[in-house]
Amino acid sequence: MKYCTQCGSPVEQMIPEGEDRLRHVCTQCGFIHYQNPKMVVGCIPVWKDKILLVKRSIEPRYGKWTLPAGYLENGESAADGASRETLEEANARVSDLKPFGMFNMPQINQIYFMFLSDLVDTDFGAGHESLEVRLYKEEEIPWDEIAFKVIKRTMELFFEDRSTGEFTFHMEDIYFDRSVKYRT
Amino acid sequence: MKYCTQCGSPVEQMIPEGEDRLRHVCTQCGFIHYQNPKMVVGCIPVWKDKILLVKRSIEPRYGKWTLPAGYLENGESAADGASRETLEEANARVSDLKPFGMFNMPQINQIYFMFLSDLVDTDFGAGHESLEVRLYKEEEIPWDEIAFKVIKRTMELFFEDRSTGEFTFHMEDIYFDRSVKYRT
Repeated sequence: MKYCTQCGSPVEQMIPEGEDRLRHVCTQCGFIHYQNPKMVVGCIPVWKDKILLVKRSIEPRYGKWTLPAGYLENGESAADGASRETLEEANARVSDLKPFGMFNMPQINQIYFMFLSDLVDTDFGAGHESLEVRLYKEEEIPWDEIAFKVIKRTMELFFEDRSTGEFTFHMEDIYFDRSVKYRT
Repeated sequence: MKYCTQCGSPVEQMIPEGEDRLRHVCTQCGFIHYQNPKMVVGCIPVWKDKILLVKRSIEPRYGKWTLPAGYLENGESAADGASRETLEEANARVSDLKPFGMFNMPQINQIYFMFLSDLVDTDFGAGHESLEVRLYKEEEIPWDEIAFKVIKRTMELFFEDRSTGEFTFHMEDIYFDRSVKYRT
């Protein structure tokens, strides 16, 4: 950011008194602009032995497959946001949302929060950010064509849990070169 | 916000083309300023049969008791943020962080994510946002002097789980007048 949201004057990066890290501070009015990680919320929509994936029609990763997910908006809960994204991207309705996993990605200031969900019916189709929507069995998943590492990891954990018959909550920190798993 | 972070011109609230809700949009350069919920991360620091609470030395809720918690910063994972807040507010070190609960508060655009943790030693004390830090047994908790509803709820769930001997992950949406619980 270059200008103050409160007075329109230029901002500079400095460490405010009593703090320990760089912030964007207004050179005129002194307003401190805090910047914080954003939460991305999404679903694993389950239909019988299949899950619903969407093929992206936007960058980044145009043409790659992913689970319905997007930025949580002000005024909505994580579950409401995950349902909304599923409706927007796949024209699909989900029910019975259950927390499945949280994936911290500190290097890109994002937190993914994914839900298990039941697909209500098979009346779905491409939304405005999708080229195609379809149900995949585990053995049909295009693992080399998945848009994001965090989505691939979510699906791996889903199929692992499904094979044991017990779904648990997962948390991992995902860095470019390593991951940290938490006991849950 | 009143001014554009990119060019310093006035912003107006409008619904951008292809979107469905009001955003702050620059009247000159057209930049759309998205605003999203912030995550607050914190710990339940456990020492034997006691938990650590801090007495706030700042508004809101000056003089009330709470668990160590604060805004997640860019560049850190939720667990790292929760450990940092515990160190800052209580000069206390925690280990073995385990996801305990997520509490969505859509009406104030906050998501609380709380961890169970082991207090490493009893060498703690008031940080710069605290008047006092102390360990409480369940029967000593000053329930009428707890700073925030979400913290009171976190502690209720902690003592419920502890009484059964089984700690599980919790998720709830907390509104001013009601709550929604999720199956986990």
